Amino acid sequence: MPTVTFLPSFRKTEVAQGSTILEAAQKAGFHMNVVCGGQGKCGKCTVMVRSGETEFDREKFGNFFSRDEAGEGACLSCQTRVMGDVRVLIPEGSLVQEQQILIDTPGVPVELDPAVWKYALSLLPPTLDDPSPDLSRLLWGIEKKGGPKEGAIYAPLEVIRQIPKVLRESGWKITATVALVPGGYRLINVEKGNTTSHCYGAAVDLGTTTVVVYLRSLIDGSIVGIGSNYNRQISCGEDILSRVNYAKRGGLGKLQSLATESINAALTTASNSAGIDRDDIYEVVVAGNTIMTHILMGIDPAYMIEEPYVPVVRRHLTTAARRVGLAVGENSGLFIFPAVSDFIGGDIIADILASGMTETNDISLLIDIGTNFEVVLGNRDWMFACAGAAGPALEGGEVLFGMRANPGAIEQVSLDLDTLEPSYRTIRNQKPKGLCGSGLIDLLAELLRACVIDRTGRINPMISHERIREGRQVPEFVVAWRDETSIGKEIVITENDIKALIMSKASILAACQTLMNQAGIERSAISRIYFSGAFGNYINKDHAIMIGLIPEVPVDRVITMGNGAIAGANIALLNRKKKRILDEIARKIAYIELNADPSFMDEYTGSCFLPHTDLSLFPGVERMLDQCRIRRVSP
Amino acid sequence: MPTVTFLPSFRKTEVAQGSTILEAAQKAGFHMNVVCGGQGKCGKCTVMVRSGETEFDREKFGNFFSRDEAGEGACLSCQTRVMGDVRVLIPEGSLVQEQQILIDTPGVPVELDPAVWKYALSLLPPTLDDPSPDLSRLLWGIEKKGGPKEGAIYAPLEVIRQIPKVLRESGWKITATVALVPGGYRLINVEKGNTTSHCYGAAVDLGTTTVVVYLRSLIDGSIVGIGSNYNRQISCGEDILSRVNYAKRGGLGKLQSLATESINAALTTASNSAGIDRDDIYEVVVAGNTIMTHILMGIDPAYMIEEPYVPVVRRHLTTAARRVGLAVGENSGLFIFPAVSDFIGGDIIADILASGMTETNDISLLIDIGTNFEVVLGNRDWMFACAGAAGPALEGGEVLFGMRANPGAIEQVSLDLDTLEPSYRTIRNQKPKGLCGSGLIDLLAELLRACVIDRTGRINPMISHERIREGRQVPEFVVAWRDETSIGKEIVITENDIKALIMSKASILAACQTLMNQAGIERSAISRIYFSGAFGNYINKDHAIMIGLIPEVPVDRVITMGNGAIAGANIALLNRKKKRILDEIARKIAYIELNADPSFMDEYTGSCFLPHTDLSLFPGVERMLDQCRIRRVSP
Repeated sequence: MPTVTFLPSFRKTEVAQGSTILEAAQKAGFHMNVVCGGQGKCGKCTVMVRSGETEFDREKFGNFFSRDEAGEGACLSCQTRVMGDVRVLIPEGSLVQEQQILIDTPGVPVELDPAVWKYALSLLPPTLDDPSPDLSRLLWGIEKKGGPKEGAIYAPLEVIRQIPKVLRESGWKITATVALVPGGYRLINVEKGNTTSHCYGAAVDLGTTTVVVYLRSLIDGSIVGIGSNYNRQISCGEDILSRVNYAKRGGLGKLQSLATESINAALTTASNSAGIDRDDIYEVVVAGNTIMTHILMGIDPAYMIEEPYVPVVRRHLTTAARRVGLAVGENSGLFIFPAVSDFIGGDIIADILASGMTETNDISLLIDIGTNFEVVLGNRDWMFACAGAAGPALEGGEVLFGMRANPGAIEQVSLDLDTLEPSYRTIRNQKPKGLCGSGLIDLLAELLRACVIDRTGRINPMISHERIREGRQVPEFVVAWRDETSIGKEIVITENDIKALIMSKASILAACQTLMNQAGIERSAISRIYFSGAFGNYINKDHAIMIGLIPEVPVDRVITMGNGAIAGANIALLNRKKKRILDEIARKIAYIELNADPSFMDEYTGSCFLPHTDLSLFPGVERMLDQCRIRRVSP
Repeated sequence: MPTVTFLPSFRKTEVAQGSTILEAAQKAGFHMNVVCGGQGKCGKCTVMVRSGETEFDREKFGNFFSRDEAGEGACLSCQTRVMGDVRVLIPEGSLVQEQQILIDTPGVPVELDPAVWKYALSLLPPTLDDPSPDLSRLLWGIEKKGGPKEGAIYAPLEVIRQIPKVLRESGWKITATVALVPGGYRLINVEKGNTTSHCYGAAVDLGTTTVVVYLRSLIDGSIVGIGSNYNRQISCGEDILSRVNYAKRGGLGKLQSLATESINAALTTASNSAGIDRDDIYEVVVAGNTIMTHILMGIDPAYMIEEPYVPVVRRHLTTAARRVGLAVGENSGLFIFPAVSDFIGGDIIADILASGMTETNDISLLIDIGTNFEVVLGNRDWMFACAGAAGPALEGGEVLFGMRANPGAIEQVSLDLDTLEPSYRTIRNQKPKGLCGSGLIDLLAELLRACVIDRTGRINPMISHERIREGRQVPEFVVAWRDETSIGKEIVITENDIKALIMSKASILAACQTLMNQAGIERSAISRIYFSGAFGNYINKDHAIMIGLIPEVPVDRVITMGNGAIAGANIALLNRKKKRILDEIARKIAYIELNADPSFMDEYTGSCFLPHTDLSLFPGVERMLDQCRIRRVSP
């Protein structure tokens, strides 16, 4: 079998001829970026083949790479077959970036207090004078080590059956694993020898598109491995609605096993990279939206997409992880975050937990933006939440040169206010192909600041500049000239694009305002605005305020928390007391149906301006705009 | 298919040609006596074929029947094949006799307080104004009906998955079943409509030889069906030691499934006769000896038969009944009685529960006799227990004309003290074939009373009587002349038989005395002697005292409780509070190892007399013997 050597680490693995480099890398324990699931669509799994024979269709997938990169052997690892011994460099950017996902929650350090304990026991063998039964002997050993009392530990049949053999074959030196589950302590494992250093748990973010797994040591809390994966359910439907419809057509079982397969694949990546046995994973904690967790548990999600939109279950769920097909220890537990409703799922509860907003009297606003958005407002005593569709503009959809945050996307832009010359940065520093969400927000804010557009989003026809011109139907601004781009044409933003962006951001701002109206608070009362999700993590906070995506607060109050769902799942995994408050958090949240709230439409209309029709809500932005206008009219 | 009509009930059933009448009777819901498992050995399943074509080997199995019986069509239902439409009479004695097994415990009426409840719910369907999740809606319904609080009920995944469909297909009118299990309340079933009248539980006595099942309504406590069966493990070994050895050779799985098959067959008999669905059985409570319950649960019993004789588990066990293969409701629970040690198992704990001896300050002695015997002494504060081998004599083994309690066995004997003429009663009033345990005890006592034997068991050579004669090697007493018997020869009891019986009874009495020594009490302190098991149920209490099988107490203090194991299992099934005290009872018992107790041998030696070497321990017997002697010497 050919050997694949990975640089710069020189880690080696053998694979069958014809395997992909991606498969080899996963086998070697690398957690590669494979957002599209290895379909050659996202370009995130790029590697550089340094030597050896490979097969890669450069015609078909070449447009992911510059000529320089191609010269260095760049190819998509998912589309490159290993035909002999090869050496491959994995660029930093092709690995799942641990820093992209924040673990420690802002302001809430997690005390390590997991729900699983291991006890190494050295028991006295039974004698005629002490013929106590095996189970009592073992449980007394745990009690003597400071564990729960013998009578307080439930021992399931599966474990009892293993006890006599393990005790005798080990010479009465064993390690017992106890977990705290609903109902009390439970003996979940018995092994020969001292295995107390092998005690792990997995935190899982089960998203509609991607799955992220964190493997944590339950001894010291350290991160031992990270795995990520696309959600293989994508083969049954891109969006969540099509998945539920697939389930309604009898496909629930298929979707369920695809969900576990996706988690298992990420678990394998993480455990391989850490060199640990998946059987040593004793608890799995999953945060996901309500439909995803219903499907993972094999519970029919159909009633959530038709009136009156009812989930089957909202409280947290626990069961044996193996029972839903997760490839972890035989008696390991699975904990599923509770939800509030069909729209506010366990992922948002995890966001809330990770933000720490329920542990203070200060009022926080939490915003999670994707194709849909969710907004939560509140503190330890009360919480309001709402959800809505932001439309695709912020993800690059419905925008002429919009694109997802893939290589070549312009992710940052600034304008020289004198010359209107843009400076931009693209993902992986490739020649630009288009604009992703964070770039679009930058552009909108900079165009506003430079008075190229007015507060309704119209391009000022009075400015005479080569970058400002009449496009095919509407005015447009040229961001990059043809020779700068890799697509053989100019990248522009049109007035229609700007309209679409304003409508998207207006939904979100109006949702925030509606919740503030419900709570009867002003923006000055907001002490924190948390952004959860990849989108929020990359945007310029000043610009988000400037265009009125969020209410104006001092910018140091805006906190990007990365993937809040995985952060929350990690916290619950590491500290069992946090699990106990989740149902309470979920119950405390009052869900506001935006379509049923009469003030939402008013707020939306007012928000369809940059930043808002009422500038008194954005005094800082107003001051800044005044200065820019003065500067513009009197150069 | 041929039709079999059973008389006197005229119940009909169809079976394939060549089926046995036993199979037909079981299909029709009769619970036949099949102690030998349908091997044609016990003769307990006799039926009378009234008309129709059958096949039965009268040569081979004819000796079970008198000529009269044969003339009436008597045959063994397990050995008779149905060849066409037939009419069959089932004699009362061939059905499992409900009155043979006592249910209500002496002195301890059972308050109905089961661990399973059904709630018929009529729920409001969800609306846009009330989109609560299905599970909460259901649990709130239970709470409103006076059940446990919504948050206090754990809902397992299997049940949650069924909820949305059942709720909608039933028009939101359903019945929910809640059980109290270790850890709290559990939602175990959800059905359409109102099924509250169908709520059953099963109490099981899992014996080495037989299995008895009682099916009880958990609504009113009534007995709805009884099933019994031989323990099919017999095919893997007659006695318990050979079963454990079979398990050690890799046969644990086979023994385990034979145990569940045996219980399932009895369950089927009971549920068929009651016309109920086995899925409506929501709890199964099993009492059995420690080895039987280990095997049922699939736990290795090997270490109980080798030094230092250690069970794997002693505490009560709970699991899902389906997990060990029991054919009851999908989420129904299984409760296994706790044990004290390898020798004092859950069957004895059930005896103790049924006796009520732990609920009083009065001191009781409980004796369970089979091939082995167990003795328990104590009250609510303390208990001693021991076990030993009684030898086979009391079951008819090692006695020349001894036999099991099968048809034709002499089960009662009395002697005319003047003429020494015996009067006897046989099982099913057949011509005598031999003597079973209760008959042997009667005979021993009557021979003693008539001064035919002395207190050492020797036959008085001075008495000149045609029934007293020198046998082949030792003197003997003729119980029945050749023309009275069905075996073509006389039935006698020899001096050797009497020796064997005395040795058996001496072990039991010595065990009782050893426990009394341990506790430091005299026989006058004993307020009750309980006999558990079939053996104790049929013996003459006066005679048991007279021969010194048990300590002398006023005879009205001796109580036969029938099958204490099934009685105890019934109590625990009907009243969950009783279950909670079982572990405490088991823990309270101090097990006395007779072989390690120096006083036991002394007690045994003293007990090898009728009733004892020290007559001051049996003052009533001494008075009676004196009177008999006087009467004898001065006729």
